[in-house]
Amino acid sequence: MTEEANVVFVGKKPAMSYVLACVTQFNSGKKEVVLKARGRSISHAVDIAEIVRNKFLQDVEVKKVNIGTDEITGENNEKLNVSTIEIVLGKK
Amino acid sequence: MTEEANVVFVGKKPAMSYVLACVTQFNSGKKEVVLKARGRSISHAVDIAEIVRNKFLQDVEVKKVNIGTDEITGENNEKLNVSTIEIVLGKK
Repeated sequence: MTEEANVVFVGKKPAMSYVLACVTQFNSGKKEVVLKARGRSISHAVDIAEIVRNKFLQDVEVKKVNIGTDEITGENNEKLNVSTIEIVLGKK
Repeated sequence: MTEEANVVFVGKKPAMSYVLACVTQFNSGKKEVVLKARGRSISHAVDIAEIVRNKFLQDVEVKKVNIGTDEITGENNEKLNVSTIEIVLGKK
């Protein structure tokens, strides 16, 4: 058990996979869990944060939300910008 | 010109429509503009905030991001939860 924040990367799996990952982290003693997502998965990450906090762990709240931009290299070496989100969930 | 924060509701139009709405608000003297979106439009709202701040108005930053849940009533009177986001953009 460390004090490090734990990161859950949100992709295309069903919400419950990530909800379970978050709940497991908190139950193993973590004080904070960070949900990270890019592009279209951003909406999915927000849903997951809301499900964790409203349905599973009432003593968890959203501590901070950061948004940003990552530059990725596409198929033809062109540069693409993709938006990112980090949602920090923590014990109240 | 008031000090009230102005709200831009993000839906399914192209990003540039909303970017232009934000830029117009700031240029008319507003100190803050709030982007609001629900469900799948959340990712779109993050893209728009990033475009405004990186490409158009370098003196604007993300002041705060709030996430939440709205309860809506579906077709058969069932209750559905939909996630929401509010991104507060403000002058540095």
